[in-house]
Amino acid sequence: MIRVLLVHDTYLLRTALAALIGRETDLEVSSTSWPGAVATSRTLRPQVCVVDMDSPDAVGPRGIRELSRRCYEGGDGFSLLALASAGRPGPLRRAYEERALGFLSKNASPDRLVEGIRHVAKGERYVDESLGFGFLEASEMPLTRRELSVLSLAAEGASIGEIARSLCLSNGTVRNYMAAITRKTGARNRVDAIRISQCAGWV
Amino acid sequence: MIRVLLVHDTYLLRTALAALIGRETDLEVSSTSWPGAVATSRTLRPQVCVVDMDSPDAVGPRGIRELSRRCYEGGDGFSLLALASAGRPGPLRRAYEERALGFLSKNASPDRLVEGIRHVAKGERYVDESLGFGFLEASEMPLTRRELSVLSLAAEGASIGEIARSLCLSNGTVRNYMAAITRKTGARNRVDAIRISQCAGWV
Repeated sequence: MIRVLLVHDTYLLRTALAALIGRETDLEVSSTSWPGAVATSRTLRPQVCVVDMDSPDAVGPRGIRELSRRCYEGGDGFSLLALASAGRPGPLRRAYEERALGFLSKNASPDRLVEGIRHVAKGERYVDESLGFGFLEASEMPLTRRELSVLSLAAEGASIGEIARSLCLSNGTVRNYMAAITRKTGARNRVDAIRISQCAGWV
Repeated sequence: MIRVLLVHDTYLLRTALAALIGRETDLEVSSTSWPGAVATSRTLRPQVCVVDMDSPDAVGPRGIRELSRRCYEGGDGFSLLALASAGRPGPLRRAYEERALGFLSKNASPDRLVEGIRHVAKGERYVDESLGFGFLEASEMPLTRRELSVLSLAAEGASIGEIARSLCLSNGTVRNYMAAITRKTGARNRVDAIRISQCAGWV
């Protein structure tokens, strides 16, 4: 019997997905939202965590990083299977950085999901073929970590001055970063750079 | 037997949700993506369409408007049940404008979904209690249609000049609109106004 914890923010959809996984006689599934993921993994002690990477909470303080830490450093030894959208390389890259073992497109069939769960439960890597191009895009993320920090603050509506104070930089340096970001993303202007980066899931 | 068409963009999740609805002996369910919704409704002739309003395609050319037209003007006579997120009044308002008969939070239980389907199949209005506050927010949308057009273009990265040309306005008028939008949304600046409006699902 493989114990599975499904992490997805919408109750209706995670309940439906859990019911579908639970039809398999070798899988025993529970589900929770991102804010409850770490606590539930502690009590449930699953072998596999299936995580929805498209939620903003997946990259928040109780998101994939914390879950991954428990998984690989806490000695609990479960494996992560990430659900991602093919057109958004950002969350895919994030799951890769946090050492997910499996990667499945949300447009895959339920059969593939079940197959993926069984693979990662055995400690085997599982990558859905339809995510191949997404991985290519994820590997080509053009921005540095510092540029991403600047862009994230800009996307929240911070002014040049506020970004500068927040990151202990001069206004001129922030302007230079913003110009580099606009150039590297092929954007027309700052708002366009934010739009492009949000569509790709980088910020 | 009630024929149900479920419209959701992610194959894995709509398959799961359809399997869950299909467990009910009085419901017969098919599912499709937004781009396939109108064509499928033509061949399937459902009594109820359950539609996910959070997809960008829901407000696109083959989205809720077209489906609603078929439903209420095409003589097919099915009812719309909208799935929406409590914190995003924009899609909720859009579903209301397009004469959806039922409104259900995506955090509702599967039982509520099934209950909602049975209600709207009989032509009865069904509103999930947890969406009540969302309706209040939806009724208080602060921007005019013209301001929303300006903001939508700005959110796509268009400059003041591009917005002006696109809407046949002067640059000064567009600047005035942007200032009004920023003030009305309580934003710090233009980027912040875009962020606030996107979070609410207005653009």
